Amino acid sequence: MRQFAISIRVRTRGRGVYEITREIAGWVDAQGLHAGLLTLFCRHTSASLLIQENAAPAVRDDLEAFFEAIAPEDEGRYAHDDEGPDDMPAHIRSALTQVSLSIPVVGGRPALGTWQGVYLFEHRRAPHAREIAAHLIGS
Amino acid sequence: MRQFAISIRVRTRGRGVYEITREIAGWVDAQGLHAGLLTLFCRHTSASLLIQENAAPAVRDDLEAFFEAIAPEDEGRYAHDDEGPDDMPAHIRSALTQVSLSIPVVGGRPALGTWQGVYLFEHRRAPHAREIAAHLIGS
Amino acid sequence: MRQFAISIRVRTRGRGVYEITREIAGWVDAQGLHAGLLTLFCRHTSASLLIQENAAPAVRDDLEAFFEAIAPEDEGRYAHDDEGPDDMPAHIRSALTQVSLSIPVVGGRPALGTWQGVYLFEHRRAPHAREIAAHLIGS
Repeated sequence: MRQFAISIRVRTRGRGVYEITREIAGWVDAQGLHAGLLTLFCRHTSASLLIQENAAPAVRDDLEAFFEAIAPEDEGRYAHDDEGPDDMPAHIRSALTQVSLSIPVVGGRPALGTWQGVYLFEHRRAPHAREIAAHLIGS
Repeated sequence: MRQFAISIRVRTRGRGVYEITREIAGWVDAQGLHAGLLTLFCRHTSASLLIQENAAPAVRDDLEAFFEAIAPEDEGRYAHDDEGPDDMPAHIRSALTQVSLSIPVVGGRPALGTWQGVYLFEHRRAPHAREIAAHLIGS
Repeated sequence: MRQFAISIRVRTRGRGVYEITREIAGWVDAQGLHAGLLTLFCRHTSASLLIQENAAPAVRDDLEAFFEAIAPEDEGRYAHDDEGPDDMPAHIRSALTQVSLSIPVVGGRPALGTWQGVYLFEHRRAPHAREIAAHLIGS
């Protein structure tokens, strides 16, 4: 059994989803394992991880509208607004989605379904440099 | 240290939860490990995984009502409706629940609490064949 | 490759978040691994796990208000109220947050971001004794 780790950096251009499927699959492939377990961990409280449909851009727009509806940026709604009106909605979005994802590796590849893509979900309006800690164990 | 993998198939009869606790525990037991880590990964974007109370059917009805309330099937609400009015609500339900679950194995069994059951959560109205990638590592 | 397991007990004083970062990091440190994977699993259906900002108490108040708004304790709202009006809201909160968390271990420490703390999220009004199954694998 062997293990590997890497820090994946994602530069965001503000709120929205950023696909990282290819980068992750490439890194897994490069380690030469046949079977194992891949873990991704988002090191932030105002960005998170999401597995969603990789084909339809409208899905991402609808997701964005959904989260805006349940955690709006209304002024005066939140006690915590140290970093602006998108600060607390960002924490709520993070709490409702994933901070970590564990994906089995089968035949040397993450066992994603045909339509599944892995995304970093940026919750802040401003661009940020985000970091995902990736871990792989297997043989 | 050894590892094992299997693909678990679940045939759903449309929207709702389907318990898979016994099947999973049986597979773990059959591998003969004493301690380790079990990972389940749902290979779909319109079904997900859920750990919930295994005793009270009313919990599942209330959960269903809750998700219908926050992500209703209103016509014209979503840009994405390629596969019908339950398409986008299904993606939202998936985003809000779990695509992967990691459960320690203790004494040869998944360390679920007394009242915890593992469920596949089907979000589409029509029956589907779903696939869960399971991975087990330990000794 | 070696693995370790422990059951972490948390006594809650009712609804709210309880930080367990230091206890977890201390346990990981004591095992003397350099690199690996830490998994935490909450063995309950009315408590869960949360990674959130560890600096601002207002974040926790806002989170609490958010969950109260989307899953209120209104009488007659839920079919399931065996254990009182906070019973079903507790299950909904659990479904929307995390039952398991997987965190890479880098340089002997969980690879949490600077502002990330790990919390047990108690959803019931009464004090409870909660149990988190922790698993660590690495070398």
